[in-house]
Amino acid sequence: MTDPFLEGPAPYLQHLGAAMTEWRADFARFELELGREHMNRHENPHGGVHAALLDTAMGFAGCFTGDADDKLMALTLSLNVQYLSRPKGTRLIAEGTRTGGGKSTFFAEATITDETGELIAKGSGVFRYRRRG
Amino acid sequence: MTDPFLEGPAPYLQHLGAAMTEWRADFARFELELGREHMNRHENPHGGVHAALLDTAMGFAGCFTGDADDKLMALTLSLNVQYLSRPKGTRLIAEGTRTGGGKSTFFAEATITDETGELIAKGSGVFRYRRRG
Amino acid sequence: MTDPFLEGPAPYLQHLGAAMTEWRADFARFELELGREHMNRHENPHGGVHAALLDTAMGFAGCFTGDADDKLMALTLSLNVQYLSRPKGTRLIAEGTRTGGGKSTFFAEATITDETGELIAKGSGVFRYRRRG
Amino acid sequence: MTDPFLEGPAPYLQHLGAAMTEWRADFARFELELGREHMNRHENPHGGVHAALLDTAMGFAGCFTGDADDKLMALTLSLNVQYLSRPKGTRLIAEGTRTGGGKSTFFAEATITDETGELIAKGSGVFRYRRRG
Repeated sequence: MTDPFLEGPAPYLQHLGAAMTEWRADFARFELELGREHMNRHENPHGGVHAALLDTAMGFAGCFTGDADDKLMALTLSLNVQYLSRPKGTRLIAEGTRTGGGKSTFFAEATITDETGELIAKGSGVFRYRRRG
Repeated sequence: MTDPFLEGPAPYLQHLGAAMTEWRADFARFELELGREHMNRHENPHGGVHAALLDTAMGFAGCFTGDADDKLMALTLSLNVQYLSRPKGTRLIAEGTRTGGGKSTFFAEATITDETGELIAKGSGVFRYRRRG
Repeated sequence: MTDPFLEGPAPYLQHLGAAMTEWRADFARFELELGREHMNRHENPHGGVHAALLDTAMGFAGCFTGDADDKLMALTLSLNVQYLSRPKGTRLIAEGTRTGGGKSTFFAEATITDETGELIAKGSGVFRYRRRG
Repeated sequence: MTDPFLEGPAPYLQHLGAAMTEWRADFARFELELGREHMNRHENPHGGVHAALLDTAMGFAGCFTGDADDKLMALTLSLNVQYLSRPKGTRLIAEGTRTGGGKSTFFAEATITDETGELIAKGSGVFRYRRRG
């Protein structure tokens, strides 16, 4: 039996190797095991990896319905990322929280830590709901 | 003969399929042919793709030296992305420009358009130079 | 005869000493003569001055109707400011441009220069229209 | 006897009517009693007020030394503000926290609430230390 709350990963998340590990009202978590393909020219994770995870965790945090047949979707209007540190471990853990908004737009923020607890990046964003399909 | 100004793509850019197509003082351009692996749950390019391209184009824009043996590198401190539209074409073109700063930090901005000229996203960022290695 | 396109300054702009000097479709300009009251603890203009001007120029850029009886208003959802330089002159000139969006939200960006042409700050923002009153 | 940890307000904060009410390592709080001079054209507090308070609380959060004769100062590189709500009360309370960084740059975030506990705005920023004078 599949979990009705967890939908299959979008192609880009699958390409990155990111997977959702929790989803509930106003919260979502995604995790990614770092590999060589995530590295930049410094041999650190590329900032685009953090941005993808933060954007995803925040977007899902605002779109939980608890019903796989009632999908709520959102577009990112703006995304802000702060790059605080580099991972000490090998797993990026992105946790997003909806922080405000209403029926048409919402605000969210997110953190990226690794499995050692190191705080690696923080993000905030503004999102707009799409009409339900 | 290889072009001394163009270095091989970082692993993450290679994984995304992005390639540098121009690099000169205060400017860099990267391009990416969209495929299914770049899509989000809406079947549009995932916001993390735009963020990766904008971050990369801005970072390189501030690091041109014209000498492959004198590499200048930078860390992203903060990144801001605005998502204005969806592509009408199939190719994302990111152009980054250094807009200010000095020897320790720099500012940059970037746009993403597609081959039809549609303006898809804009970004700005603050970067810090790493010591030369 | 009063100019139907220019409305009286909001109390906060009046308190700051900022005045609108141009307003047309997708564009607005505000100017402010720097005084001692705008300074921070470094004796430079406080970052809140730039933020107020950028926010204002962008908000108005998206709200031009050309008809003083048909007021369009917008709320700022998010604002991003980059502080590039310090003024060489004594007048801050903020120019805002609407860059995209639709009927419910819009994107804008703005610059602050001074009368010597020095580029001092850049901003971008996301705004939401209010229902017309 | 004056408190050696609290310095007199910068001219702009005095002009706004904002006062520091707490300052310790990695933290600062400023408060402001809303008046008519803080209002925008909607008769709500102008977004520039929030930005000034957030910027100030974050900047001071990273500059505490505990010694009035050893002043540490910082320049704002970039500031991001999210406007979540409007005040229900009449007092804006900005609390800033240093979240990371090192000797040359630092990261901070801040919230604005009012005396009813309503969350009104959130901010994040990147700052650069100035040499000690």
